[in-house]
Amino acid sequence: MKRSMGAKSLIYPTPVFVIGSYGEKGEPNVMTAAWAGICCSKPPAISVSLRKATYTHGNITRRKAFTVNVPSDGIVVQADYFGMTTGREEDKLAAVGFTPVRSELVDAPYIEECAMVLECKLIQTHEIGLHTQFIGEIMDVKVDEEALDKDGICRMSKIRPFLYAPDDHNYYSVGKMLARGFDSGKAIERKKRK
Amino acid sequence: MKRSMGAKSLIYPTPVFVIGSYGEKGEPNVMTAAWAGICCSKPPAISVSLRKATYTHGNITRRKAFTVNVPSDGIVVQADYFGMTTGREEDKLAAVGFTPVRSELVDAPYIEECAMVLECKLIQTHEIGLHTQFIGEIMDVKVDEEALDKDGICRMSKIRPFLYAPDDHNYYSVGKMLARGFDSGKAIERKKRK
Repeated sequence: MKRSMGAKSLIYPTPVFVIGSYGEKGEPNVMTAAWAGICCSKPPAISVSLRKATYTHGNITRRKAFTVNVPSDGIVVQADYFGMTTGREEDKLAAVGFTPVRSELVDAPYIEECAMVLECKLIQTHEIGLHTQFIGEIMDVKVDEEALDKDGICRMSKIRPFLYAPDDHNYYSVGKMLARGFDSGKAIERKKRK
Repeated sequence: MKRSMGAKSLIYPTPVFVIGSYGEKGEPNVMTAAWAGICCSKPPAISVSLRKATYTHGNITRRKAFTVNVPSDGIVVQADYFGMTTGREEDKLAAVGFTPVRSELVDAPYIEECAMVLECKLIQTHEIGLHTQFIGEIMDVKVDEEALDKDGICRMSKIRPFLYAPDDHNYYSVGKMLARGFDSGKAIERKKRK
C-alpha cells in the first residue's frame, strides 16, 4: 500500500555537487547543489537548478560558465558548509582551506580538493519557476590520477561521491557494487527463452 | 594531479530511475533512465532527458505525462533489463512479472513494485541536442507505507535506491549514513569563531 506524500520535490537519491563560479569582484565562489545531473550526450551537457536568490545564480548569468565539482565522502562537512553560507559575505574556500584553480577552458574556478570536476560553458537557461535551470556544455572532465585504475577507468570506489536524502535530511556514502550495467538484465532474457 | 578525460557526459554518481508512460496502443511501458533529477521546488518539478529514438520519448510527447519510479536494490536486475530492451517489441513489465498501476492524477502508469513513485505532468520540453529534456510537474509523490518511519519520514535505508557509475559500468548500493545535512557544516562555523 502506498501513501500519498503530496506534490513536493522529493526523490531518492540526490547527488551532492559543488558549483564553482566567479563572483561580482572576480573572486572564486562555491555552493553545494543537489539538483543537478547530466542532460545530454551530444553535446555533453549537465543541468544545474538554482534559486534566483543565490549568489551563484548571478555569477553564472554574468560569466556564462560554471564548474561542477564532485566532493568525496571525506569532505562531507566542507560540502555541507558550502550549502549553508553565502559567498556574498565570505570566502568559503578560504574558510575550509581549499584551493580554487582557474579553468583554462571556461570562465570559472574548480576545486583542487575534489577528485572529479566538470568545466562547463552555459548554453541554455530555462525558467522553471522558483528555480532557474542552467544547461552547461561540458568542455572537459578532469579526474585525479589516483582515482583512475591501470586502464584509465574512473572507479566509483575511488571517487567516493556521496548522496543526500531530502526528507531524511542525511548524507549517505556509496555502498557495495551490486551488479553490472547493461549486462545483469540479460538473466531475464535467458529466462524468457527457456 | 588531475587527468583530462575529454568532453564527455560523465559524472558520479547518477541515480537509476524507471520512467513509466503509455505506449501507442495505450499499453503500459517502462524504461530505465539515469539522466533525471529534481529541477524546481515551486512548482515541484523533475527533469528527464531522453533520446528521440526511445519509445518513451514519443509516449511522453503524446500523453504529456510520465511517472518516475525509484527501484530498490533488490530489483536491480529488472531495472537493468528495462534499460536494455524496447517497449516497441515487448511488454517489459509482464516479462519480469511487475504490476502497472493507472495513475489517478496523470495519464501514465506507475510500478507497484517500486517503493517510491512520482506522478508527473509535462510542463516544458527542451531540445538540448541528441537528448530532449522533459520537465514534469510533480503532482504527487507516493511511497510504500513500509518505507516510512513512525513520524511519516521517508528513510533512505527503507527506500534503498541504487546508483549507476557511467565509466565504471556498475550499479552500486547506498551505504552508511555519513552526516546530518544543513548541520554537520556548523563545525566549520564554530572553528572560525575560535
